[in-house]
Amino acid sequence: MAASRAYLDHNASAPLLPGAREAMVAALDITANPSSVHSEGRAARRIIEDARREIAALVNTKPEHVVFTSGATEAATTLLTPDWQMGRGAVRLSKAYVSVADHPCLLNGGRFGAERTIHIGVDGDGITDLDALRQALAAHDKAEGLPLVAIHVANNETGVIQPLGKIAEIVKAAGGVFVVDAVQAAGRIPLDLATGYADYLILSSHKIGGPKGVGAFVAASDLMMPKPLVTGGGQERGFRAGTENLAAIAGFGAAAREAKIALAGIDQVRALRDSLEASILSLAPDAEIFGRRSERLANTIFFAIPGVKSETSQIAFDLAGVALSAGSACSSGKVGPSHVLKAMGHDNPEGALRVSIGPATTQAEIEQFTAVLAGILARRAEKTKAA
Amino acid sequence: MAASRAYLDHNASAPLLPGAREAMVAALDITANPSSVHSEGRAARRIIEDARREIAALVNTKPEHVVFTSGATEAATTLLTPDWQMGRGAVRLSKAYVSVADHPCLLNGGRFGAERTIHIGVDGDGITDLDALRQALAAHDKAEGLPLVAIHVANNETGVIQPLGKIAEIVKAAGGVFVVDAVQAAGRIPLDLATGYADYLILSSHKIGGPKGVGAFVAASDLMMPKPLVTGGGQERGFRAGTENLAAIAGFGAAAREAKIALAGIDQVRALRDSLEASILSLAPDAEIFGRRSERLANTIFFAIPGVKSETSQIAFDLAGVALSAGSACSSGKVGPSHVLKAMGHDNPEGALRVSIGPATTQAEIEQFTAVLAGILARRAEKTKAA
Repeated sequence: MAASRAYLDHNASAPLLPGAREAMVAALDITANPSSVHSEGRAARRIIEDARREIAALVNTKPEHVVFTSGATEAATTLLTPDWQMGRGAVRLSKAYVSVADHPCLLNGGRFGAERTIHIGVDGDGITDLDALRQALAAHDKAEGLPLVAIHVANNETGVIQPLGKIAEIVKAAGGVFVVDAVQAAGRIPLDLATGYADYLILSSHKIGGPKGVGAFVAASDLMMPKPLVTGGGQERGFRAGTENLAAIAGFGAAAREAKIALAGIDQVRALRDSLEASILSLAPDAEIFGRRSERLANTIFFAIPGVKSETSQIAFDLAGVALSAGSACSSGKVGPSHVLKAMGHDNPEGALRVSIGPATTQAEIEQFTAVLAGILARRAEKTKAA
Repeated sequence: MAASRAYLDHNASAPLLPGAREAMVAALDITANPSSVHSEGRAARRIIEDARREIAALVNTKPEHVVFTSGATEAATTLLTPDWQMGRGAVRLSKAYVSVADHPCLLNGGRFGAERTIHIGVDGDGITDLDALRQALAAHDKAEGLPLVAIHVANNETGVIQPLGKIAEIVKAAGGVFVVDAVQAAGRIPLDLATGYADYLILSSHKIGGPKGVGAFVAASDLMMPKPLVTGGGQERGFRAGTENLAAIAGFGAAAREAKIALAGIDQVRALRDSLEASILSLAPDAEIFGRRSERLANTIFFAIPGVKSETSQIAFDLAGVALSAGSACSSGKVGPSHVLKAMGHDNPEGALRVSIGPATTQAEIEQFTAVLAGILARRAEKTKAA
């Protein structure tokens, strides 16, 4: 392993922010169940409610609309359900409409199951096919129940940002419920639930510099809520049972506060990313940068270079001290073609590489990446010459 | 608040063990998704697999039978489902049989729902009515599916230990699946899955001195597994999706290792508890100690004293620096009569108090408790005199 490591895999998991670490370590010393009514329990409760306010502030909504979960995957499984409640009344949703480029936790339709989940395509630039969505919703039989549409703000592999406003209009016109996966967008683009582009947001702590093991779903209004997934005690106002993950929630709250501030510095991240992208194209003019014609997250590059196999080059990068990804890390050790690229109509048998950075990424890390890539390309050139 | 606090509410949440704290803090510095294949990802993966081995060792089973969840409540909701899989085949369970004294996460039947959940009573000593269980299972219609029985090893309020061997025989004779909630038993009585008393165990980290936000279900064999509750990526061999809660899992593993060792010192805990119980009975000879005629956990006392209201005396204890509980802390801030005492046939309008201790509890804490109780009883005596 190289002496100094460059961690360029923020979309898989961002480094823990110092403030989040501090909040967690402090919370470890609170011995109590947040449901206990003694002083210790009330101290634990305060930490949770403070964090809830930070999450609400990040997406501009009321704290009572935030429901903590064990992560974005649980939040998605909770929201993707046919069974909802409005007060004491039941509301039935009959089908889920998801993007083919969604994360697996949305892609499989959650509690709708595959048979009640319809996939909406994306174009070659990674943008949701709005006509296909419109047509699918027009064909939806409302007598069976309302439609639920679940789409990500920004793709975890390409960073491509969806036209959320337009999608929201289409969903609203069809009388549907709109669930928005903001996991990769939070802390990278402003999210304001008050502007009405989403009914429910999915958030993950460890993608914004908080700890792993906590996330949330956030409702624009809590008029209608999904049937709880995890049941038992009355925590989270009855919407999610189980003793709260105190330390992780404390870290998530601190990370949300920092993420909101970090948004102001996103142009610096973009500048680093753009210089890195320019280096790739300068070293390998035949490189393909996916989603480049679309609006993208400022921190992400997903690219392929002819003759460079992603799996082997990822190992070469790792040995040389650079951590990056061949696609997403969403399923345990899975290696296979990217479903996102396939959905975009790309056929890349050699695979692709993802570089994702953050506010803490340095110019030195970018240079370390560039040096390793130069070596890989030199070997490619030798091979071509030998052949 | 008193200068020095006595925390006597271990059954609600045990203090974080130093080893667990250390393991967590170390894990916070591992920046990676455990599913990533680079060095950072593999380091994270190792932490998880090490912890898995510790959990398996605590209950004497194979590491691959341990599935991490966000806590015991999620583990219970996962296991309490009609839908199971055996390899690629589906297995249908039609009804859940749970104890009326179970924790709410079992009591409500999880994914079976109330209409497919049957409650089995307990006697005045808190012991499961074995005849009632036998009869209920005899009446079970196997044509609809197998029965699932879910019962706790030890009660969170009274500490009463169930005759698990006998229950397991009854369940086995009926061809049922036996889910055992070992949340309060782990680290307090030996648990050996190899002896065949349970098909599935439910564990919680924060009840054994690990952090909140993580738990597990453990299978005696992984021949038959429940339909996943949280779906998405392929983590936990497909049985539980979502990025693993790295730091909490690290802490859980360390706590499991310490809990296994601490078992050897359980008689010291018992001696402290017995001296505390003797003090209560000496100060208030009319005190009732619930489940006292049954085998109980060494760390728990659940008691009521005529003329002492649990809610107000809990506040008095808290103000005097003693944290204890009026029943369980399982649902957010809920104050109401204990469903466990009701199930045991007790009618205590004044409520009851629970003291639960652990290996770190000191004689000084016990004395602090006794002094406060003496004050409460002195006020009771004055009131009686005044009346």
